[in-house]
Amino acid sequence: MTVSSAPGKVYLFGEHAVVYGEPAIPCAIERRATISVEARDDDHVRVQASDLSLDGFTVEYTGTTDDRPDVDVPASLVDAAMGYIDAAVEQARDAADAPDAGFDITVESEIPLGAGLGSSAAVTVAGIDAATRELGAPLSVEDLADRAYRAEAAVQKGEASRADTFCSAVGGAVRVEGDDCRSIDAPDLPIVVGFDGGAGDTGELVASVRALKDRYDFAADTITTIGNIVRRGERFLDPDPSDPAADQSVEERIEEIGRLMDFNHGLLESLGVSSRSLDSMVWAAREAGAHGAKLTGAGGGGCIVALDPTPETLTGLRFTPGCEEAFRAELADDGVRRVA
Amino acid sequence: MTVSSAPGKVYLFGEHAVVYGEPAIPCAIERRATISVEARDDDHVRVQASDLSLDGFTVEYTGTTDDRPDVDVPASLVDAAMGYIDAAVEQARDAADAPDAGFDITVESEIPLGAGLGSSAAVTVAGIDAATRELGAPLSVEDLADRAYRAEAAVQKGEASRADTFCSAVGGAVRVEGDDCRSIDAPDLPIVVGFDGGAGDTGELVASVRALKDRYDFAADTITTIGNIVRRGERFLDPDPSDPAADQSVEERIEEIGRLMDFNHGLLESLGVSSRSLDSMVWAAREAGAHGAKLTGAGGGGCIVALDPTPETLTGLRFTPGCEEAFRAELADDGVRRVA
Repeated sequence: MTVSSAPGKVYLFGEHAVVYGEPAIPCAIERRATISVEARDDDHVRVQASDLSLDGFTVEYTGTTDDRPDVDVPASLVDAAMGYIDAAVEQARDAADAPDAGFDITVESEIPLGAGLGSSAAVTVAGIDAATRELGAPLSVEDLADRAYRAEAAVQKGEASRADTFCSAVGGAVRVEGDDCRSIDAPDLPIVVGFDGGAGDTGELVASVRALKDRYDFAADTITTIGNIVRRGERFLDPDPSDPAADQSVEERIEEIGRLMDFNHGLLESLGVSSRSLDSMVWAAREAGAHGAKLTGAGGGGCIVALDPTPETLTGLRFTPGCEEAFRAELADDGVRRVA
Repeated sequence: MTVSSAPGKVYLFGEHAVVYGEPAIPCAIERRATISVEARDDDHVRVQASDLSLDGFTVEYTGTTDDRPDVDVPASLVDAAMGYIDAAVEQARDAADAPDAGFDITVESEIPLGAGLGSSAAVTVAGIDAATRELGAPLSVEDLADRAYRAEAAVQKGEASRADTFCSAVGGAVRVEGDDCRSIDAPDLPIVVGFDGGAGDTGELVASVRALKDRYDFAADTITTIGNIVRRGERFLDPDPSDPAADQSVEERIEEIGRLMDFNHGLLESLGVSSRSLDSMVWAAREAGAHGAKLTGAGGGGCIVALDPTPETLTGLRFTPGCEEAFRAELADDGVRRVA
């Protein structure tokens, strides 16, 4: 049996604007999807999934049948998760030149589904890595990121971003601009995540931002403004030695990153992708003294990310109506991890 | 006895950005301050104020003594209201060339103090109008607006906007850009106001936006973007016959104005002038089906304005924790009104 894990991520800056060529900065967090793969002696694929949401559940699901698992999360999310696993299997078969390989696959995930934390990218990265290794054809991290991107693109009908899978495969903080993804340094960020238990429809949210941008020049300007926030943010994450930001203490740089996150959140609000519960969690974090807080991912529901080295934001979120779950998430220095 | 009333206002678009030369559109609403003035045969001024907040109170306050009224609202707000009345008396004495005129003045107001609804402008306009008429020296509406501006500027140490007093004196919707204020047409807007019972510190909020603007180019860009929203908004309030907006139904134009208000709110959020309770009321309005909702005025607390022809937003706001008071407010076609 071969076991790989891969981390989820938060967006510190730039979601939505990244679709239009602006830079963005996702950041891997220590919440992982772990995939165990065992080769079969036929060409079937059998998937057992547990803990696909924070509530947790266990299903047996055979990708080749029409059986619908009897679980406590929306069927569309389970279907989606299974779609990513199927696509990961296809990539692994192709990479190992083993078109008839069959697998028993177990998925365990600490990353809420569809909540903007990159659960699908983590499942895809860990799945391809475990399956290719099980077939004796391990991939470099770069090839893994590329194959995982192609798997996501297949499921999402070409609408995938390279950033999510790159970040999950490589770990750490990532700067993405168009198809260019690269790791950047980042201080040890005191990340706190709040989750409202829901999930926005990424496709619908991306389309609604596009409609606003097409309708209003000032919406296009707002997207450019988000890009400018990202360009400032990266200076404080990973300052060039010649940059005055490099003279600041780590604490000062984190405070500045928080202020930029606050501003970024307002602009996302203006683009119509926040929600009552997301704003409520953002305010809880700010009033608890967080350096900054914003929604992360597509929005419409799901998660916020805040920076707070004290326990206050975590406590504040846990007492906030509409916040189902709050947790501290370390920056994940490792991307894909070869567990067994 | 001479009695004048003057309306409060909401900002449909452009608060804060107006400080930097962008246009803004305040709009008078049928919530009034009513001032009764009776000349005295000495040079004293005696002020009786009632209902200076929505909670209501009655005080006797003599401007020339140090007596502090024993009331249930922050003393700073009462002092502020009295400051405007003193300044209005000074303008009336000057306009009527009666430096020693004394008055008994009664103030009744339906406009919450310091909540961004222009209570001070309404008190100042109605006060100058009633006092000048009582002295037999009535002013034109233009002169009244100008004198009221000068009174506000004296109290606010030169930081006043001409828009508030112009809007209260003239009524209706007003386009302001720099020192240029002019009336514009507006359809009959289904205005709903939600009030959180609080008040932001206008001076502090204006200063915090200035600090952001000085620190970040993207904050300056955001202010410009607000100006662009206003420029689009005025086309839908008062379309030029050659503008495609003129071909839309009033209903369609109001829906567009709502969308622009939503966007404007997000940009104000990014500038740091919203608050948890303001955002909570904005979401209540949106979820109740309002065409749009935003904070109005300086922010930090106070009021939101929403557009909804149905009773839903009013009901939604009344059930929203943090909303102390919600009311429908007709557009006030009249500005200052000569009651007696």
